[in-house]
Amino acid sequence: MVDKKILETYINKAHILTEALPFIRDFNDKTMVIKYGGSALINPEIKETIIKDIALMKFVGMHPVIVHGGGPEINSFLKKLEIESKFINGLRVTDEKTMEVVEMVLAGKVNKQIVTDIELNGVKAVGLSGKDGGTVIAKKIESDIDYGYVGTVDHVDPTMLKSLIKSDIIPVIAPIGKDEHGNTYNINADYMAVAIAGALNAEKLVYLTDVPGVMKDINDPSSIISFIKAKDIPSLIDEGVISGGMIPKVECCLEAVKEGVRNVHILDGRIKHCLILELFTVDGIGTMIEKE
Amino acid sequence: MVDKKILETYINKAHILTEALPFIRDFNDKTMVIKYGGSALINPEIKETIIKDIALMKFVGMHPVIVHGGGPEINSFLKKLEIESKFINGLRVTDEKTMEVVEMVLAGKVNKQIVTDIELNGVKAVGLSGKDGGTVIAKKIESDIDYGYVGTVDHVDPTMLKSLIKSDIIPVIAPIGKDEHGNTYNINADYMAVAIAGALNAEKLVYLTDVPGVMKDINDPSSIISFIKAKDIPSLIDEGVISGGMIPKVECCLEAVKEGVRNVHILDGRIKHCLILELFTVDGIGTMIEKE
Amino acid sequence: MVDKKILETYINKAHILTEALPFIRDFNDKTMVIKYGGSALINPEIKETIIKDIALMKFVGMHPVIVHGGGPEINSFLKKLEIESKFINGLRVTDEKTMEVVEMVLAGKVNKQIVTDIELNGVKAVGLSGKDGGTVIAKKIESDIDYGYVGTVDHVDPTMLKSLIKSDIIPVIAPIGKDEHGNTYNINADYMAVAIAGALNAEKLVYLTDVPGVMKDINDPSSIISFIKAKDIPSLIDEGVISGGMIPKVECCLEAVKEGVRNVHILDGRIKHCLILELFTVDGIGTMIEKE
Amino acid sequence: MVDKKILETYINKAHILTEALPFIRDFNDKTMVIKYGGSALINPEIKETIIKDIALMKFVGMHPVIVHGGGPEINSFLKKLEIESKFINGLRVTDEKTMEVVEMVLAGKVNKQIVTDIELNGVKAVGLSGKDGGTVIAKKIESDIDYGYVGTVDHVDPTMLKSLIKSDIIPVIAPIGKDEHGNTYNINADYMAVAIAGALNAEKLVYLTDVPGVMKDINDPSSIISFIKAKDIPSLIDEGVISGGMIPKVECCLEAVKEGVRNVHILDGRIKHCLILELFTVDGIGTMIEKE
Amino acid sequence: MVDKKILETYINKAHILTEALPFIRDFNDKTMVIKYGGSALINPEIKETIIKDIALMKFVGMHPVIVHGGGPEINSFLKKLEIESKFINGLRVTDEKTMEVVEMVLAGKVNKQIVTDIELNGVKAVGLSGKDGGTVIAKKIESDIDYGYVGTVDHVDPTMLKSLIKSDIIPVIAPIGKDEHGNTYNINADYMAVAIAGALNAEKLVYLTDVPGVMKDINDPSSIISFIKAKDIPSLIDEGVISGGMIPKVECCLEAVKEGVRNVHILDGRIKHCLILELFTVDGIGTMIEKE
Amino acid sequence: MVDKKILETYINKAHILTEALPFIRDFNDKTMVIKYGGSALINPEIKETIIKDIALMKFVGMHPVIVHGGGPEINSFLKKLEIESKFINGLRVTDEKTMEVVEMVLAGKVNKQIVTDIELNGVKAVGLSGKDGGTVIAKKIESDIDYGYVGTVDHVDPTMLKSLIKSDIIPVIAPIGKDEHGNTYNINADYMAVAIAGALNAEKLVYLTDVPGVMKDINDPSSIISFIKAKDIPSLIDEGVISGGMIPKVECCLEAVKEGVRNVHILDGRIKHCLILELFTVDGIGTMIEKE
Repeated sequence: MVDKKILETYINKAHILTEALPFIRDFNDKTMVIKYGGSALINPEIKETIIKDIALMKFVGMHPVIVHGGGPEINSFLKKLEIESKFINGLRVTDEKTMEVVEMVLAGKVNKQIVTDIELNGVKAVGLSGKDGGTVIAKKIESDIDYGYVGTVDHVDPTMLKSLIKSDIIPVIAPIGKDEHGNTYNINADYMAVAIAGALNAEKLVYLTDVPGVMKDINDPSSIISFIKAKDIPSLIDEGVISGGMIPKVECCLEAVKEGVRNVHILDGRIKHCLILELFTVDGIGTMIEKE
Repeated sequence: MVDKKILETYINKAHILTEALPFIRDFNDKTMVIKYGGSALINPEIKETIIKDIALMKFVGMHPVIVHGGGPEINSFLKKLEIESKFINGLRVTDEKTMEVVEMVLAGKVNKQIVTDIELNGVKAVGLSGKDGGTVIAKKIESDIDYGYVGTVDHVDPTMLKSLIKSDIIPVIAPIGKDEHGNTYNINADYMAVAIAGALNAEKLVYLTDVPGVMKDINDPSSIISFIKAKDIPSLIDEGVISGGMIPKVECCLEAVKEGVRNVHILDGRIKHCLILELFTVDGIGTMIEKE
Repeated sequence: MVDKKILETYINKAHILTEALPFIRDFNDKTMVIKYGGSALINPEIKETIIKDIALMKFVGMHPVIVHGGGPEINSFLKKLEIESKFINGLRVTDEKTMEVVEMVLAGKVNKQIVTDIELNGVKAVGLSGKDGGTVIAKKIESDIDYGYVGTVDHVDPTMLKSLIKSDIIPVIAPIGKDEHGNTYNINADYMAVAIAGALNAEKLVYLTDVPGVMKDINDPSSIISFIKAKDIPSLIDEGVISGGMIPKVECCLEAVKEGVRNVHILDGRIKHCLILELFTVDGIGTMIEKE
Repeated sequence: MVDKKILETYINKAHILTEALPFIRDFNDKTMVIKYGGSALINPEIKETIIKDIALMKFVGMHPVIVHGGGPEINSFLKKLEIESKFINGLRVTDEKTMEVVEMVLAGKVNKQIVTDIELNGVKAVGLSGKDGGTVIAKKIESDIDYGYVGTVDHVDPTMLKSLIKSDIIPVIAPIGKDEHGNTYNINADYMAVAIAGALNAEKLVYLTDVPGVMKDINDPSSIISFIKAKDIPSLIDEGVISGGMIPKVECCLEAVKEGVRNVHILDGRIKHCLILELFTVDGIGTMIEKE
Repeated sequence: MVDKKILETYINKAHILTEALPFIRDFNDKTMVIKYGGSALINPEIKETIIKDIALMKFVGMHPVIVHGGGPEINSFLKKLEIESKFINGLRVTDEKTMEVVEMVLAGKVNKQIVTDIELNGVKAVGLSGKDGGTVIAKKIESDIDYGYVGTVDHVDPTMLKSLIKSDIIPVIAPIGKDEHGNTYNINADYMAVAIAGALNAEKLVYLTDVPGVMKDINDPSSIISFIKAKDIPSLIDEGVISGGMIPKVECCLEAVKEGVRNVHILDGRIKHCLILELFTVDGIGTMIEKE
Repeated sequence: MVDKKILETYINKAHILTEALPFIRDFNDKTMVIKYGGSALINPEIKETIIKDIALMKFVGMHPVIVHGGGPEINSFLKKLEIESKFINGLRVTDEKTMEVVEMVLAGKVNKQIVTDIELNGVKAVGLSGKDGGTVIAKKIESDIDYGYVGTVDHVDPTMLKSLIKSDIIPVIAPIGKDEHGNTYNINADYMAVAIAGALNAEKLVYLTDVPGVMKDINDPSSIISFIKAKDIPSLIDEGVISGGMIPKVECCLEAVKEGVRNVHILDGRIKHCLILELFTVDGIGTMIEKE
């Protein structure tokens, strides 16, 4: 039998578990799409806590769905294979050789590693790209410039994802799709996450980023805005509160809300357990954009 | 945005949540019968934590089933109604009038109060007695002495309980049954819990008691035995390690194990969050009797 | 082998069974809510026939749901416990102590007795109050006078009832509910039956009363009106055909019809087998209010 | 409102309905195969009561399955078409032309008429021959004499029958089967009923015959034996209690019991409502052969 | 091992199988009602290929439903039985005796023969008339002339058909129905097929006829029109392109399209494998009337 | 309308389709594991026919499951990345870097390409490695030599595969697994196919190889043995009929048969449509090893 003091600590721990009850209750049986990228994917210490958060989400009755990025790994392999990339307007011009490497790294390395990490926590996961199960039908981005195999989502068929979710297997999805002729396209993971969250009628879409969230003063992390109504975003952009690199992110959020996702979260993926902190506390740690 | 120190506290809390993962994983979809009585049922402060524990168990995927007692309330009402009770060998001789009061208090007061308390935490519960759904078929206890309507369990039909569990409703059961002629019997809640746990093939049967567990030295709570193999119990009784009032309790445990329950726990129901402490920590706080 | 004359009697009996065919066919798989109170609940001889009627309804494919009252038993126990009641406008001012007794008697005595009686006929039943499964969410009645724990139905969640009906278990419901803070309320059984019949989209709501039905001349039982269209009720009240104590009853019926119940019956619960007589004969014995 | 005396009559009728409860309860969800032939099929007045009995059986939760004969109709059409039949050992030598007529009359006339009659009572029925759904695989009877298309049952595939029963449609089956080459065979309806009852694990197989049942004295209908244990049949034959034309009938019963049917009944199909009389009264009107 | 040349032949055969892929894919899980009559039903050589086509349709995932005619057989039996028929306006005046023979031949002979033929290919089929399962409710045709038991479809209850289709059993339906009084009617098979295809929301209704299809020049089979839009039919009739005996056929098609059938095909049932040829090739061999 | 000669060709084609009926019938709803490697995977012309064969198998009701290899691609990438491999006893010593490339090529390139090819034919497929869904638990091969991440199958959890098969999605599996610590292993695809076929209780396991099958005379392709009973294999090896490189292949077959697979086929994957040729013709083109 543990002594009184240790028992007290344990009771505190148990108390903390039950504090999570209202959140567990509210999000029960809800689909949560997580865009997983940036530091959260690279820093091993952070990564471990996030993977545990995902496992916990599953165990307490939510349905996490992961859409991941994989930037640095791609560059590293392209370099090793001495394939050079041209960038126009920040987009990588993607020829067939490059696309091949991008797919191998995303679908054959990053993706399967996330699956392995999750399964170590006793949950089942499956590594997919948008090509599997005819899930993501892509099309070449429209532009005067030929970016090669850079695509956007034409539409999503969520049938297979739903069946896997129902079987309690966490889908981990690489941001790749194919068109009706079988051509493979590299898709921006942020937009891919929007399309998938929309097709699944997700309760939440959560972005793990390398910034604290939407801030009133970009240099002051304490100026973070916890809640924004979707309808207030246009005026926030007009007023310059949302500016710079945050604008495309927030436009993704708006798009997601329009496609039927209830809330979109922008989190600091550099904080340990950031998922649990955002989902299981009243104020959270990042910014939540609400549909209504 | 919270400051660094508070964030640290939150991260610690999140960490504690994920520490529970292995236990949540192991007990997923398992039925846990809880004999709920003694101080745990009376002390409001303790009660609140135990109800929360039960709600948490449900939310993380277990199927708690409650069998409750109700001693003091029964005496109080019998007294108010000026019905006197004769006791022989510690058993209350139960005539028709007494049985009527026992049933009203157990099924109409204690039972419905537990249901109310659980439902305040956002989980569904249903208050039943063994008479409902033909669940517990009782028979008069065999004895030379006529104890009146004091019965034992003849057999259990778990059909309705299983259907309620499948619908994610927690059954809360008063220790009352009826025989095939419609006679009502008062049943010892400890034995009722055994019969129900057996019929449901429960993973665990947990006794909330007013002692710390099975102790080597009855006067030294720190001498508690954390694990006992069912097959070692007879010799522990012979050696006098298990003695006195603990013997009938332990015999219940043996019976439960024989009926197919995997583990039986004897806990100190006077400790806050005792259910979580026992189920979600490696050593637990009480005594666990193992089938094998 | 029976002799010719006896055989003739038997053949007649068989013929009577098959006469019921058209009614059995029409009400197959239909939900029938029965407000069970008054003499039908008290007179043992009548009671026996009504319980048999309910069992037969179940066996031939209908889904009876019972909502019961329990007046005299409550008074008797309040008296024994020397709790006095103040009545204002015919409503009992219900303090906490009184509510406790009301709940014990309704949910712990009357309710479980009906379950026992039904199950003796080989059908499964389950005794519930509106508190179970979060079925009936109540609220305090609105009034300048404080009646204490006297409530009305705010809304009904029929999920658990439907699941029990699907499992072929007859729900027997005490007219008690709780609000979102866990407070218990005593609810008028007539209105409770309306709310439950509405939430279940019942085919019929049947009131067992101590009058023959709606009569043209209140002193002449032979003046009973067999069928009334719901839309004709207001003018019948205006013309004084429906008057006095019959008005609130009939308003219940109107409310039920508005909530989606197809027919409401007002029967004389003092007649043996009154349920079968009303449901299995062309004209019935009471008054049927039709939606259209 | 009906007057007192008429009400009394009605209450009696209602009482008779509830008297059937124990039988309804016991036979709920049980499959009952009825061999329907002889006078019961020809006499229109009797027929009407038997069809009503079958409809009632369905409505109160049993699953009747009809296997019918059709002797006189076949002869009448063969005569009209001037096809002569040779009989050897009581069996009709069945050439292709004869078989064609037999099938048309059984499957196209008698069968569809029974379906029509049943459906007039509000129950669904479907007319089949053993050829449908690959249900009855027949083979030519083994004999030194060539009887043509006279067959026995090789085996039964009950898949389609079970699916129809589950959809609450009463199968009405003509005693015809085909072999694996597509040849059509006429099968003795008594044996066909045995094979189908066996394949469906029927609770009962009921023969409607033109005799009162098994009688001790063949000239004294009052000497009928109500219950016979299957194991006692051989000695009853030895002792001459069962003799003559009753022997093959009783051997059918024995075979059915061996194939898993629980009880086999031999009834007098010349009595109105004979099915209800046998099934819904304690002693019945015919002879019941019990498995154990 | 086969030699090179034979292997080449085999590879060609395999190639032909895979050529069918796009058609198999498009018609997967679709219901196809086939009106089966004329030469296709009489010529044994043709018949064999059509039956095989039906079996193949089933095996590759379509749901064929057969509605058959039976003209010549009926005449032959009426003649043998010396029953004379009067014809008015091309309709047979059908008295009770005639109707009896019509039903026996259609439901007891033609129908069961088709079932036998299909089942020889390893698929399950069931022979029905519209009377079975209360599927086709008929009514007497409206006319000043009394044609006796000549009826039209009042409405179709597709419940049983759907349940059989779901169980992978092919329904084979004789064009007979009954009214609510149990009277039997002979129904034009072309119209019966329309009503059934409509009630099943069929993808296709296919008429096997004795003409090549709709032709521009009735004397030139090569003038066949492969595709007609439903909306163009009235003008095609006005222009005289569709004329004579083709008009009622085409009006059936229009009716079917109005009832929700997507395409209606008029095929030459005198061509071997005409079903496969029409369904598994781009242009088909007959005329397809398209909804849109 | 096509002319007579072309029509004749079409009729022949239709005839060929219906010739496949018996095979389609026999393999309906059966699981077929195909080890897909060698020339069949490399030669684009052959590949196209095999992918079509797989699509056809799916459409006619079989459940193909693909396990693929990928040798040449792996070597090519290792070379490009200047990673050298040491081979001992024919096994590649696989360090972490090598394993990384192997996984990327197999799971990120070869695997996804097969998925894309299959989906172009209108069937859904999903690209997996044994790591997904915890399907293949691997362990390091036991040996005195340290081959690094070269593993064998410890056990297979077929849950996810079965759920995908039930959803009509073809699993395409890369021969990679992980152990309980999350280490990734390269597994021999032939053995992986055996383990998966066993866990799925497959009807057939089909090896696409670069030899014609088991031949009596290794230099004479016409000496191929079409059928071998599993029990005869040991003596065939003793007699030298099976020798050299064919021995390990045949041992795989024996193992598969032992694990519950009914037939194992060794085919010449260099022949177009070899799958259809083997499965849809009586003798097939390769060697079939039969369980019994």
